[in-house]
Amino acid sequence: MTAVHPPSGRRTGRKRGSYAKTEQKRRLILEAAFEVFSQDGYRSGSLRDIADRVQMSEAGLLHHFPNKSALLAAVLEHRDQRTADFFEPEGPGDARTGLIGILRLTAYNSSVPGIVELYCTLSAEATAPAHPAHDYFVRRYEWIRGTVTSIFEALRDQGDLVAGVEPASAARSTIGLFDGLQVQWLLDREAVDMVGELRAHLSRLVNFEVPAVE
Amino acid sequence: MTAVHPPSGRRTGRKRGSYAKTEQKRRLILEAAFEVFSQDGYRSGSLRDIADRVQMSEAGLLHHFPNKSALLAAVLEHRDQRTADFFEPEGPGDARTGLIGILRLTAYNSSVPGIVELYCTLSAEATAPAHPAHDYFVRRYEWIRGTVTSIFEALRDQGDLVAGVEPASAARSTIGLFDGLQVQWLLDREAVDMVGELRAHLSRLVNFEVPAVE
Repeated sequence: MTAVHPPSGRRTGRKRGSYAKTEQKRRLILEAAFEVFSQDGYRSGSLRDIADRVQMSEAGLLHHFPNKSALLAAVLEHRDQRTADFFEPEGPGDARTGLIGILRLTAYNSSVPGIVELYCTLSAEATAPAHPAHDYFVRRYEWIRGTVTSIFEALRDQGDLVAGVEPASAARSTIGLFDGLQVQWLLDREAVDMVGELRAHLSRLVNFEVPAVE
Repeated sequence: MTAVHPPSGRRTGRKRGSYAKTEQKRRLILEAAFEVFSQDGYRSGSLRDIADRVQMSEAGLLHHFPNKSALLAAVLEHRDQRTADFFEPEGPGDARTGLIGILRLTAYNSSVPGIVELYCTLSAEATAPAHPAHDYFVRRYEWIRGTVTSIFEALRDQGDLVAGVEPASAARSTIGLFDGLQVQWLLDREAVDMVGELRAHLSRLVNFEVPAVE
């Protein structure tokens, strides 16, 4: 499947004003769908509830997204823009802020358990090749592995990486730990400090003291 | 919920021969259910298919396990006995074999993607408190964290742990990495070597060379 569906305005070649309106509507639907899926889960979350929140009919909603799984994929891509912001280095050449971004994203996730639950469940389900979000997750992991590998490569180039640590491997294990801690944390929030564990992990990979984040 | 349901023979107070027969039947059902859930997933796997494999009616099967989620919980507990075998130290006082057990379990999992997929999906879904397997997974993670913490404590006591590594934290991160790598691996088996990544992780925690496993 293609995860991003172009807004219908593009397909039908409407005028600019109509296109902007379609884009705005589409964004409102994504925000509402995100709230509903986070609260109720993907399977239980209803299209009718999402449509109600944006004062549309279900048929109107399906004009923008052909089905529930297309809507879900669009919600996830929409959220990825937020995820990407966490990885954006604050200044040029400062790879250390990339690591801090990972910790900040973890701290943010600790404040939104519903979203984390949605993400964990979906990513696991989507490992099945027939799942509607399978291709999305394959591409997403390629992208995130590439992004995190680049951070570790930059750290290596500036002498910040512990000798013998391979950037691509460091990326795979950091992402794996990031994901795996979420399941433990969702099951028992008192028992697991996700930020603390990730910080300890990163500290074993680099030569500088990884700062604590709020 | 209680994950383990006592066999019906116990409840009705039948004689010993009948009890043994019930136990044997129960075991056959668990093996069949495990095969079906691994192949078809939990949701798609049908009770009728499981019943067919053990030449019973669906009603007969439901005499042993009141519903699908009870059967699932019993299947998981049954499998945990196998998991526990991997952690069993080969000789007294040899904590290093505990780490090798983790790698062996990872290598075993690499040969059974259907089971890994089932486990990942279920553990993620079961983070929702209302899920029928929620309590099972909460207890399972407590058990596995305790088991792995004991291994790292024993390693610390014999001077095998890197200075500053805290056994309980090492356990949480090792289990987190173990779980998180599975999702990446299921999505792209070529991109992720689960055993290699876990071995690299463990090597950063201990003072000896962690052996490769097959």
